[in-house]
Order: sequence, then C-alpha cells, then structure tokens
Amino acid sequence: MPSRRVDPLVLADAVLRGERTALARAITVVESTRADDRDAAERLLARLLPGAGGATRLGISGAPGVGKSTFIEAFGLMLIDAGHRVAVLAVDPSSKQAGGSILGDKTRMPRLSQSSAAFIRPSPAGGSLGGVARRTGEAMLVAEAAGFDIVIVETVGVGQSETTVADMVDLFLLLIAPGGGDELQGIKRGIVELADLVVITKDDGDLAPAARRAVADYRHALRLFSPGPSGDWVEAVSVSALTGKGLDAAWQIAVQRLDAARAEGRFAARRAGQALAALWREIDAGLIERFQADEAAAGALRALEVKVAEGKLTPAAAARQALNAFAAEQPGRTR
Amino acid sequence: MPSRRVDPLVLADAVLRGERTALARAITVVESTRADDRDAAERLLARLLPGAGGATRLGISGAPGVGKSTFIEAFGLMLIDAGHRVAVLAVDPSSKQAGGSILGDKTRMPRLSQSSAAFIRPSPAGGSLGGVARRTGEAMLVAEAAGFDIVIVETVGVGQSETTVADMVDLFLLLIAPGGGDELQGIKRGIVELADLVVITKDDGDLAPAARRAVADYRHALRLFSPGPSGDWVEAVSVSALTGKGLDAAWQIAVQRLDAARAEGRFAARRAGQALAALWREIDAGLIERFQADEAAAGALRALEVKVAEGKLTPAAAARQALNAFAAEQPGRTR
Repeated sequence: MPSRRVDPLVLADAVLRGERTALARAITVVESTRADDRDAAERLLARLLPGAGGATRLGISGAPGVGKSTFIEAFGLMLIDAGHRVAVLAVDPSSKQAGGSILGDKTRMPRLSQSSAAFIRPSPAGGSLGGVARRTGEAMLVAEAAGFDIVIVETVGVGQSETTVADMVDLFLLLIAPGGGDELQGIKRGIVELADLVVITKDDGDLAPAARRAVADYRHALRLFSPGPSGDWVEAVSVSALTGKGLDAAWQIAVQRLDAARAEGRFAARRAGQALAALWREIDAGLIERFQADEAAAGALRALEVKVAEGKLTPAAAARQALNAFAAEQPGRTR
Repeated sequence: MPSRRVDPLVLADAVLRGERTALARAITVVESTRADDRDAAERLLARLLPGAGGATRLGISGAPGVGKSTFIEAFGLMLIDAGHRVAVLAVDPSSKQAGGSILGDKTRMPRLSQSSAAFIRPSPAGGSLGGVARRTGEAMLVAEAAGFDIVIVETVGVGQSETTVADMVDLFLLLIAPGGGDELQGIKRGIVELADLVVITKDDGDLAPAARRAVADYRHALRLFSPGPSGDWVEAVSVSALTGKGLDAAWQIAVQRLDAARAEGRFAARRAGQALAALWREIDAGLIERFQADEAAAGALRALEVKVAEGKLTPAAAARQALNAFAAEQPGRTR
C-alpha cells in the first residue's frame, strides 16, 4: 500500500498543488478501511480542509439502463468546455472492484476520463453504506482541495444509497428514461422525494416523443408534491446526451437554484446541517459498534431479537435488557 | 397518580376482561414518562402480550383541514356497525394536553366517542417523537389485549410523525382534500411515499367535481411511482364522511390488500420487521442518551459541533474525538 509510505502532510501539499497522482493517492488513504490508515487520513484531511468546500456538489442517480454514464460524460464535457474542473465520484456499497482501479470508468466514460480537467473515481470497495458514504464524502473534500470546482457524486439508483448521496450534495438530479407509452416505469417513491430536478434522458430519435410525454407527466405529477430538499419546486426537463439537447438548460436550472439558495442563506444552512448530521451518524455508528462488540450485550440481544420478532416481548423491554447487559460490562458506568 | 396504586398484574387481568376503566388506566401506566412507572408498565405488558397482536392496525394521516376527525368518526361508526370494535390512538409529539383527558376527542368525534364499541385516546403529552411513538405502540398492544380488533393510529399530518406511524401499522391511509382547481395543495413528498391508499375527502356537494378530478390526478401521479410499503400499488379513492359515499369501498380495498399480504406472508414479515426496527431504535436511543449524559463527551461535543458546522473539522474526526472522550470515562472499556 503506497498510502503508508508517504507523509500525510507532504501528500496534502502535493494535492493542494494540483498533482494528479497525489490526488489519487490521497483518496486511497481516506478510502482505506485499515484502522492504522485512519490517523494518516485525519492528518491529511486536516491540512486539506481549508482548501475544500468551494465546489458545487451535485448528486446524480438513476436506475440501471437510464443512460447515467452517457449523461454524466456529456454533461461533464459541457461543464469542462465552460471552464470548470469536474470530479466524478461514485457511491455503490455493492461495488466489488478495488478502490484504485478505474478500468471500468475508462470504458464507461471514455472521453471524459481522458480530459485533464476531469477526475473520475469509482466507488470504494466493500464495507457498509455508512462506511462507503464517509469515504466518498472525504474523497469529495480531497477533490475540492485539488481544485475541482464541480463534484458529481453518482449512485447506482437501487437501494438506499440515494438518501446517502442526497445528504452530501447541494442539488440532487434524478435521471429517468422515457417509458414506452402510457405506463412509465415505477420509480421508488423514496428516491423521487430526494430530487431537486428530474431529468428525462434519451430525448432523441424514436424516443423523443416519449421523452416529451414523460416531461409533461412528471411535471404534472411533481406539482402534486411540495418543494424538494433545496426548498424549490421540483422541475422536470428532458435531455439528449447524443445531441446535447437540454444539457445546458438543466445546468442553468441548477445554477439558478443554487444562486437563489446562496442568496437566501439556505445553501450554507444545508451544508452545516449535512455536516452535523454526518457527525451524529458517525457517533451513532461508533456507539452501535461498541454495543455489538460487547459479548454480553450481543449474546443477550440474539435471544431478545427472536422474542421481539415473535411478539413475545416488547421492543422497549428487550432494549432495556440488552442495554443493562451492556452497562453491566462497564465498571465505571451506572446502570 | 392512580397508576402506582394498582398491582400491574391485577390491572392486566381487568384489561383482559375488557373493563374500560382498567384499559384507560393501563394506558396511563404505559404512557407514563416516570422511570419508576416503567417497571410496572413492563410487567403489565408482559401479561397482556399473549392477547395482543390480533388487531388490524391502520394508520391515518392528513393535513389540518382535510376532514380527518370527520372521516375517522364516519369510518369508525361504519366498522362498528359491521361488528368491529375500534380503538383510535393519536400520535402528536406537539400535543400539550394531558394523557388522560379526552375532552378534545369528545368534541372532535362526538358520536364515535359515545359508542361502547369504540375507544378514543388522545396523544400522550410531551416528550420526544421517539418517546411518543413507543408509548402509542404500547397503548396499541393494551387496546388489542382489551379486545379491540381494529386499531386506528392517527397523526396530525405535519412534521415527522407520519413515518413513525407508518412504522407501526399494517396499512397507511393518507387523506387529501380536493383542491380548488388545477393546482392541488402541496403534499409533503415524504408522506405520499408512506401511503398504501390515498383517500380524497369531501366528495359531496360543491366539492364533488373537484374530488373526482383529484382522484384522477392522484391515480395518474401515483402510477409513476412503485408499490407502497405494503407491496401493492397505491390506489386513490374518494369518500364523503357526510353521505358515507366511498367509505365501504375504501375499507374493502384495505381488507383485500391485508388478506393478500397475509396469504403471501408479507403481513407477518412486515410486523416482525417493525418490531425489530423498534428494538433497534430503542437501543440506539438508549446509547445516545448515555452518550449525552456523559459530561466529558457532551463537553467535547459542544466544541466539536461548532468546528464541524463551520467545515473546519471532518465529521469522522470529530466523532472519533467525542467517542474517545466518552470511552475515557469508562474504566472497563478499551479505547
């Protein structure tokens, strides 16, 4: 592991100078699940933090087949043409690939991955969603310190990772493919809830009429619900990654909404709230980890869970017994 | 407090015999926030649990003004006419009224509150949403043990209490009033996500055309999303509490869905999952409570939270420092 051979502060300075290999290495350090890499990661991040936080953070999600890679490539290249530097990070707790490999992404986004103004990083491998989220959140800070002013966090569009991503970005885009007619595909309602902007993909060729119908359908449907997490009403637009149609319009909506959020103080409030929520998630996870590592508590819990699931013991009574078993192990604690 | 004058097992037996005053008293015991009432509550519930769990649990929510009380009264009376016994419990963490008072509910549902086959209990007063949820969940078990075969848990339709209620019922009904035209009122998207059935109220008189348009609108919109928590597609129906129109249709949909869920094993799985989730919420709350009661940890946290909100410290680093401060207080624990 090269991560432990380099002094974290030396590495941090190389990141701040914008050295690409240093950036990749620094992310490897913060993504490491080894306990002895955590100290290095924290020293590294402490040095990088003053240079982080300045980027626009976009979340992008969509079900497999929606054209997510194609959209991100075309959208990213457009942003780079406009003078931006774009980092793309992924959250996918099911990912098996090693953190350093970007082979998959070279295939997925061949043109974007060749641009010197782009940096693409696949999802860190393995671990719980909470762990993956923390590592992606920290990789985002590293990319920002390296001078990337737009960070796109993408997620696979299945499972719970969308909530996690929405909790770390300024604006969340949900990609939806046009359906083959009246009956559109079923979108998990919990995901639509997170969206600030719904983007209908594939507005080209034979699918163009369906894409336009989908925009009208979603506009109508989204009007039945209240504002998204950004505080604005959710808008639906259609795009074509092939022709470029709608890409700039989608970006302009994003810019307008972020500018308004900044002017009204909602932007800073959302960021501070996200950071505090992340702190409490970490504390929570740490407490649960200690509880589960406790043999007496874990042993008690196994039997208690069976009784609770069968309706033979109330959750509150079972929790009290498990917590008492945990407390009994701690001489300095009162029960 | 009468709750501490009665032996919990004697009280439990009176509940099981269906004595109304015993039921009200038993709920007062489980709703008590006094630590010394908890033992009595757990002994009481342990005796009642074998007789609980047999009811159909319905959650009902809707924004203020939607006609929730009127609907619950008409719906409850219809169910009682069909031979059921109906308990109505409320979840409202903002409630200031004392747990024992039902004056408000006598006014709110005058006819239902007079029926001997109905039992109406307002929300327990004060406390956190988690605390209110636990007490309502336990009150539900007491009502079931007393022979009520339909338990309606209602929530005020603002804030976070809907998620809590959806997590304790078999089917969740969302009430929506017909809008005054094309622009329907904004429903919190997070709430629609929880619904198994959307009920448009006030399908009578001048509002009948708007109610029918709302049904069509919501049917269309809900088709864009995937199945609700019960595993079925979300249906929209309209009702009139004044004329009784649609009340039986709404109940029949509920019955069909619950029968299908039972036949496919989803019903029992949802209940077991809810109980285990409640257990983990209780453990989580207990661990956080201990953490916050720890002076060293709480002191460290106050300073850390400021740094995290300002982006000067990562959430993970702050959490590690706070957890270390907590662990340092516990001689028996490793850091």
